[in-house]
Amino acid sequence: MPAKTSKPTSNLTFAFLGPVGTFTELALAQVKEAKNAKKISVNHVAEAIELVISGKAKRAIIPVENSIEGGVSATLDALAGTDKIRIYGEYLVPVSFNLVARPGTKLSEVKTIATHPVAYAQSRKWLLEKLPKHVHLPATSTAAAAAALLTSEQADAAIAAPTITNHHKLITLAKNIGENKQAQTRFIQIGLAGDLPKPTGADKTSVIVELPSDQPGALLAMLEQFSTRGVNLTRIESRPIGDRLGRYRFNIDAEGHVLDESMGEALAGLHRFSPKVSFLGSYSRADKQQTKPEGNNSNGQYADASKWLESIRKAR
Amino acid sequence: MPAKTSKPTSNLTFAFLGPVGTFTELALAQVKEAKNAKKISVNHVAEAIELVISGKAKRAIIPVENSIEGGVSATLDALAGTDKIRIYGEYLVPVSFNLVARPGTKLSEVKTIATHPVAYAQSRKWLLEKLPKHVHLPATSTAAAAAALLTSEQADAAIAAPTITNHHKLITLAKNIGENKQAQTRFIQIGLAGDLPKPTGADKTSVIVELPSDQPGALLAMLEQFSTRGVNLTRIESRPIGDRLGRYRFNIDAEGHVLDESMGEALAGLHRFSPKVSFLGSYSRADKQQTKPEGNNSNGQYADASKWLESIRKAR
Amino acid sequence: MPAKTSKPTSNLTFAFLGPVGTFTELALAQVKEAKNAKKISVNHVAEAIELVISGKAKRAIIPVENSIEGGVSATLDALAGTDKIRIYGEYLVPVSFNLVARPGTKLSEVKTIATHPVAYAQSRKWLLEKLPKHVHLPATSTAAAAAALLTSEQADAAIAAPTITNHHKLITLAKNIGENKQAQTRFIQIGLAGDLPKPTGADKTSVIVELPSDQPGALLAMLEQFSTRGVNLTRIESRPIGDRLGRYRFNIDAEGHVLDESMGEALAGLHRFSPKVSFLGSYSRADKQQTKPEGNNSNGQYADASKWLESIRKAR
Amino acid sequence: MPAKTSKPTSNLTFAFLGPVGTFTELALAQVKEAKNAKKISVNHVAEAIELVISGKAKRAIIPVENSIEGGVSATLDALAGTDKIRIYGEYLVPVSFNLVARPGTKLSEVKTIATHPVAYAQSRKWLLEKLPKHVHLPATSTAAAAAALLTSEQADAAIAAPTITNHHKLITLAKNIGENKQAQTRFIQIGLAGDLPKPTGADKTSVIVELPSDQPGALLAMLEQFSTRGVNLTRIESRPIGDRLGRYRFNIDAEGHVLDESMGEALAGLHRFSPKVSFLGSYSRADKQQTKPEGNNSNGQYADASKWLESIRKAR
Repeated sequence: MPAKTSKPTSNLTFAFLGPVGTFTELALAQVKEAKNAKKISVNHVAEAIELVISGKAKRAIIPVENSIEGGVSATLDALAGTDKIRIYGEYLVPVSFNLVARPGTKLSEVKTIATHPVAYAQSRKWLLEKLPKHVHLPATSTAAAAAALLTSEQADAAIAAPTITNHHKLITLAKNIGENKQAQTRFIQIGLAGDLPKPTGADKTSVIVELPSDQPGALLAMLEQFSTRGVNLTRIESRPIGDRLGRYRFNIDAEGHVLDESMGEALAGLHRFSPKVSFLGSYSRADKQQTKPEGNNSNGQYADASKWLESIRKAR
Repeated sequence: MPAKTSKPTSNLTFAFLGPVGTFTELALAQVKEAKNAKKISVNHVAEAIELVISGKAKRAIIPVENSIEGGVSATLDALAGTDKIRIYGEYLVPVSFNLVARPGTKLSEVKTIATHPVAYAQSRKWLLEKLPKHVHLPATSTAAAAAALLTSEQADAAIAAPTITNHHKLITLAKNIGENKQAQTRFIQIGLAGDLPKPTGADKTSVIVELPSDQPGALLAMLEQFSTRGVNLTRIESRPIGDRLGRYRFNIDAEGHVLDESMGEALAGLHRFSPKVSFLGSYSRADKQQTKPEGNNSNGQYADASKWLESIRKAR
Repeated sequence: MPAKTSKPTSNLTFAFLGPVGTFTELALAQVKEAKNAKKISVNHVAEAIELVISGKAKRAIIPVENSIEGGVSATLDALAGTDKIRIYGEYLVPVSFNLVARPGTKLSEVKTIATHPVAYAQSRKWLLEKLPKHVHLPATSTAAAAAALLTSEQADAAIAAPTITNHHKLITLAKNIGENKQAQTRFIQIGLAGDLPKPTGADKTSVIVELPSDQPGALLAMLEQFSTRGVNLTRIESRPIGDRLGRYRFNIDAEGHVLDESMGEALAGLHRFSPKVSFLGSYSRADKQQTKPEGNNSNGQYADASKWLESIRKAR
Repeated sequence: MPAKTSKPTSNLTFAFLGPVGTFTELALAQVKEAKNAKKISVNHVAEAIELVISGKAKRAIIPVENSIEGGVSATLDALAGTDKIRIYGEYLVPVSFNLVARPGTKLSEVKTIATHPVAYAQSRKWLLEKLPKHVHLPATSTAAAAAALLTSEQADAAIAAPTITNHHKLITLAKNIGENKQAQTRFIQIGLAGDLPKPTGADKTSVIVELPSDQPGALLAMLEQFSTRGVNLTRIESRPIGDRLGRYRFNIDAEGHVLDESMGEALAGLHRFSPKVSFLGSYSRADKQQTKPEGNNSNGQYADASKWLESIRKAR
């Protein structure tokens, strides 16, 4: 159930996968247009999407890749289930975990540790070494696990984002206990389909594509729709369509903007090729890396080729 | 922590993602060689793999696709992290959910519902309609949620596999409440690398392949290693390698057996192409569908081509 | 040197690879718009092209494939050397050879046989069997060889098209002596670039494409410009560019018209990809076979995809 | 009809496309093993091949690319018509043309010029400028045209190879009158299939491949048989199969030796793919350029991959 948070001064509303104190909140802090907005925390990605579709939130911030808070599949599948949503931005959040506890707790006293299962998996190596006899208590989020320390004695400690101590009167028993020190989570800002973000020269375009069912080589043919136009992919991820095993849709992030000629032609090609292609949006890349299409596929080179085609079609 | 289960008469040991009463148990029931084996339930896929590597279990049954009990990513990433494990078989389990409770409970009295988050997501539509005011209590498995009903009053009901009532004195309040009525979970049997299962004519081969890092078109080139030899893929799934965003490994299931000429040549081609390719095994398909390589790539046609090559290499 | 032929009633001028009595004349007879035109026979393909470029002939009929009169390479290379010429039609002529001689000649008396080298090669099997002691006297065309029988006694017989006896007082000693009974020659009608022939639904488009020089896989990438848009090729023929060995240009005939969306997009793609692409024309196919683009690449499907692209570019 | 030439001291016999004084003779001069051999000049490529097949000649030297003496198509088609012939070497001959005449002739007096049609086409630009009123008398070879100057007064001059004056008492009126100053002709040495030339590290392999008839994309699929194994092509040339228009066979020269692992696997792949593939031989390249397979496809890398495949097939 949505829970309101801090003093909005604009009448924009942002939903985010909560509660406060999770990594999503760190992504939200990077979103300029959310600065003075009203913020609503939700418990599920599907809930965030529902709030946006119903108009109760203008935008939502949800995890999409390598998520600690339960994103990825939930997000990908939720986006595949509607054609009303567009992506408006992406944000990278470095992921590190601290072990937190009620003031006065000593590390040696910790037995039961609450956290989200993914955070637990990331920290398991450290725990097996330092607290081999610990027991894991699963929670819906790292922040919920931490908050519960103050209302119940079920757990002795929680694994959560470093910022959790800004929200709750807890102490940090150990820092950065996750296995992968370079871990990042990628979040996206979503909203209703509306004004397309302007091309910045460093953009990404996201689509979901189903393959024509019974054709071998169909994946190759689909990828050629991009490569023939010089469009590079940054991510391709298959997800079962869900009607039966063995059928997949592909979540694809490609370099460039739908208003780029090469990308536009590639997407139109996909539209003809695929029984179903969903456009999720074109938006500025978090890493600000400039788009360089392969081969001679810049907008200028497309314009030259169009002019030439025009000339031979008139054939004078 | 491993918990022992029912009367083994062989000295084979099978680990499975537990506890008893989950869908994994239904997969385990399909494994002939596990019939009289000792069975150990574990809490994490990683734990199952550790038991196999240490020799404490001969084999393990773990979910790999569309899992309700937390497989997929955990399984894929765990398999990518070792080269000691091979797949020995696959099993399909139809997935359906029942709402269960302590004897005497009425549906109208149910407020707090315990279950694994994936099972919850699958049942959410039904719950919002029938029990709009319910609260979700997350659990590590559907079976754990059900079992806890008998030891604690935190939850009023649990969502679990239909077989759960064989294990616990619970009643079924509602049947088949999941959204997707055709849902299946695919499980695999894993063990240490050892005797390769014999080709049956209806086999699958699983590999994990990393792409040479900075080459666009690398995915296309990788897929051509299969298509040139007429090998069809049944699944391709990308997973972040994890060292940094933007690098992926691909989990691939292909039709055929490593002892088939076409598959052998494709895998050797992948080995040259890729900085890292892990062979996960060749095993009989759950759906018993016969392998038909594309084009003229049967073992007989390979033998003919080899004979011809031999003849021109001698050139007499 | 051009030699004038029969009674023109229009002021159109057609050049053709002569002299009268060759297979080119049979092609010319198929060209409706040449019916009442003035006709000029020329000795070389290059000469025909020069007459068209200079305006002395409106059109020319020249052999392009499997030619008996010295077409193919000469034609392909001549077309590659100019950008002023377009193809306006194609014509198929069945090729058969007769052995002709001065009236009164007997087969057993024939020793020296005049003909074009290609016609000789086609008839050599028959000659070795029936006239094993013959000597070949090369000529610039089959018709020139036949005509010379009446002005010189150098040769006893000539190999020529069946129609040669319409032009010269000669007798036929043997019919259909060529080796390949299904042989055909393909001719084209060329003219200055001007009004593009209208699409008929059964069209061909011809281009000459150079590959970017030092890229392996460049030929594959070039072919993908067609295949991604569902355009089938009916002919691909490499010719050395001629500046040094190892560099080729490709003469390509593809199914469809430059005004078809799929073909237009493929040609614009080639224009970006290739350092040099020459458009030779879109024209009605001699065999009247309807164009069926592979996949969903009809004009209607292109229009749908464009409409969709427009809609997501506006994103409302 | 074969005509014998200079003092052999070995009992090897070499046929060559004659007569003496043509460019083929210059190629023959590069063939070490022909040094002391008996040499037979022939009038047609087909005749050279017949002599080799019948055993009357051990080897033959014939033009294969950019030929002035009438090679190319005749050679390609003749090689496609037999499976008894192999290529044993290739030789490059720079092509330049001189205008030669009987002693005492002045350039200004030249009216009728004899030569092979290809040599004429190459020299036409120069002739139109210097002798605009000339007439062309076609000949079966440049050398035959030159030799005839001494036995007949039909022609005033001939266009021939510079070496022609070594054989005939003629004078040179103008040097290097051909249009393309870098022109080369490529010749091959052919013999019966027998001992395969040893790999030198700078080899070529030649094959003729038919496409499976009615499959669009078949050419792409054929090229992938090479590219997947990292084998580069140096030449691809289509020739009509001849049974009807629209069917082609492809003459392909590829870098490497049939004993190289990558080439062997590519050829075996072609053998499965194609209804007909003819192996023409592996031989040392004229330009001595070392073979570098694309990607990781050296013999050593093939051996590593085979060892790995062996290990996973045993799976211990």
